[in-house]
Amino acid sequence: MARVEIVFYSAMGHTEAIAQSVRVGLESVDGVEVGLLRVDELADDDAWARLDRADAIVLGSPTYMGGVSADFKRFMDQTGSRWYERTWMDKLCAGFTVGGGLSGDKQSALQAMHVFACQHGMIWISMGVGVREPGLDRLSSSIGMMAQAGNAPVAETPPAEDHATAEAFGARIARATLRWGLGRA
Amino acid sequence: MARVEIVFYSAMGHTEAIAQSVRVGLESVDGVEVGLLRVDELADDDAWARLDRADAIVLGSPTYMGGVSADFKRFMDQTGSRWYERTWMDKLCAGFTVGGGLSGDKQSALQAMHVFACQHGMIWISMGVGVREPGLDRLSSSIGMMAQAGNAPVAETPPAEDHATAEAFGARIARATLRWGLGRA
Amino acid sequence: MARVEIVFYSAMGHTEAIAQSVRVGLESVDGVEVGLLRVDELADDDAWARLDRADAIVLGSPTYMGGVSADFKRFMDQTGSRWYERTWMDKLCAGFTVGGGLSGDKQSALQAMHVFACQHGMIWISMGVGVREPGLDRLSSSIGMMAQAGNAPVAETPPAEDHATAEAFGARIARATLRWGLGRA
Amino acid sequence: MARVEIVFYSAMGHTEAIAQSVRVGLESVDGVEVGLLRVDELADDDAWARLDRADAIVLGSPTYMGGVSADFKRFMDQTGSRWYERTWMDKLCAGFTVGGGLSGDKQSALQAMHVFACQHGMIWISMGVGVREPGLDRLSSSIGMMAQAGNAPVAETPPAEDHATAEAFGARIARATLRWGLGRA
Repeated sequence: MARVEIVFYSAMGHTEAIAQSVRVGLESVDGVEVGLLRVDELADDDAWARLDRADAIVLGSPTYMGGVSADFKRFMDQTGSRWYERTWMDKLCAGFTVGGGLSGDKQSALQAMHVFACQHGMIWISMGVGVREPGLDRLSSSIGMMAQAGNAPVAETPPAEDHATAEAFGARIARATLRWGLGRA
Repeated sequence: MARVEIVFYSAMGHTEAIAQSVRVGLESVDGVEVGLLRVDELADDDAWARLDRADAIVLGSPTYMGGVSADFKRFMDQTGSRWYERTWMDKLCAGFTVGGGLSGDKQSALQAMHVFACQHGMIWISMGVGVREPGLDRLSSSIGMMAQAGNAPVAETPPAEDHATAEAFGARIARATLRWGLGRA
Repeated sequence: MARVEIVFYSAMGHTEAIAQSVRVGLESVDGVEVGLLRVDELADDDAWARLDRADAIVLGSPTYMGGVSADFKRFMDQTGSRWYERTWMDKLCAGFTVGGGLSGDKQSALQAMHVFACQHGMIWISMGVGVREPGLDRLSSSIGMMAQAGNAPVAETPPAEDHATAEAFGARIARATLRWGLGRA
Repeated sequence: MARVEIVFYSAMGHTEAIAQSVRVGLESVDGVEVGLLRVDELADDDAWARLDRADAIVLGSPTYMGGVSADFKRFMDQTGSRWYERTWMDKLCAGFTVGGGLSGDKQSALQAMHVFACQHGMIWISMGVGVREPGLDRLSSSIGMMAQAGNAPVAETPPAEDHATAEAFGARIARATLRWGLGRA
């Protein structure tokens, strides 16, 4: 049994909707338990303990001004003592982001998540889905998963293809987490 | 007369000390007025008005977990309406950061500042000092200015060379701002 | 009179077509002379002399495997002596890239151009066009200009909107170059 | 038994020396076979076949003008058909770079390697060594391994600490590769 936590920030609900699709993908693989944590729930020590026990951590944030949101960055900054203690060393990590444009500097937000993961000594799972796979990864991202949302309700945007991509990404993370867990001596 | 605002976050005082050295460099050039703004002073509309009037904005933040601090990111996110209205279009912009390591992912923090500046349509001033100039730019940064601070009081760290580099960077920003202002039709 | 050189690599013609549209935009502004240089013409000393005399240099490359093409990188690496001598210090610089996907790691290619420009001490012109401007910047890039091309002839792809964006970007670069030239003491 | 290939470019010998230390680290772990490939040996189909069979690929390049060297980028660009066929999907990947400065935009070169790895659907191994470990990671890098070399013979530079860091990084990559291999169903 592998344990994956999705830690995310969502203001308008679009990033939360993508987080739910990543969860669906993760849970589609036998042997994986998934938790969702909003960064504003992290006042709670139990929430931090869940992250400490996780085999993999998935990071999710909207792209604001070319980076993760300030609330998500607060979460990142709060991990300083875990960074110092190497608490998250060798966990798997992956990231997704949601923005209003087709490209829109979303890659910068994913780069920020990747640097963060590497500071903790984690192992980074690339997007890895969608090439030559019709109906997936319409934005052609590779570092992590990108979704694009317009100024419309969550029922309308991001489009179905982005949700399908999020599910495929979740399934990939689940398989990698099981494999990484099995390989532990 | 050109007006430059330095907007920064500092928790321990090291980034503020570098901001002061950037200011010294800026003020060493005739015809330049300089203001310092802590991001926690930006609750005040007058502070925002100062940024709106500035010919150049200098960004300063410690590097935390491979990016700007959460408080500095909050400031960035708060500029969304100015981004939409193109209020800061064609201003000059530059950035500096302070971190504990020699390299230490400080470049990521400067990249985040650069993307932010470009989202606003600003023009980015590179480091531009120090090559073949003994005693300057010991960390060999080019996107913006880097200083390195240990766990010691502000009187001891960052070292004098970093302060000299900050002054040279400030003088460069001042000259560019005057030139950019003079060229306006 | 300001002089702008566009230095680019193009294998299939799509990047060259965008370079031509950037040129149209540059030449739409009175007082700006424009040259185009393919990186494989740089065996010629005269070509390098043109770059040395330019007031602004515009960089253009397809995005290959998440970065500029190897031929374009060769050009970058060949500038080492100019970097050492600070020959291009304080020139203006901007960049554009063409890739097959909507996002597709094109931002990484533009970041590579920006770091290169900053190593030379140049000043970076952001995209700066297209927000709230219908028909421009459909990919919502900010560091530089992005175009997207499919596997089709140059007459069909990139689409007309990308060419219009390239023209607007060229005009912006022209205006900045004139202003920067006028401001020189 | 796991197989790791180190593919690298070295002009002056400093990057090759670090590659040798990464190899020493890899071979210090039982059950790991290591090959070294210079990018100019890749005219040979056998060399490509070795990369295709590898469980992990380690990328090494000097940092030139803020990125990997043009010769190393040529290697990257030559992998296009493998990218299309997903040949390297789910391999492990890591990177190291050598530059003349303490920071010196080496992070950009590592970012370029990371994007490349993610385009192939590989899994990225962070630096993960050195925090609170005296004598390791003096440059405090996290995405990959950084070494700093002056204008001196390979016997003198990079310094011993960088070689020790490269060995520790190699050992980490070896352990991860064994674990990832064991976990395969």
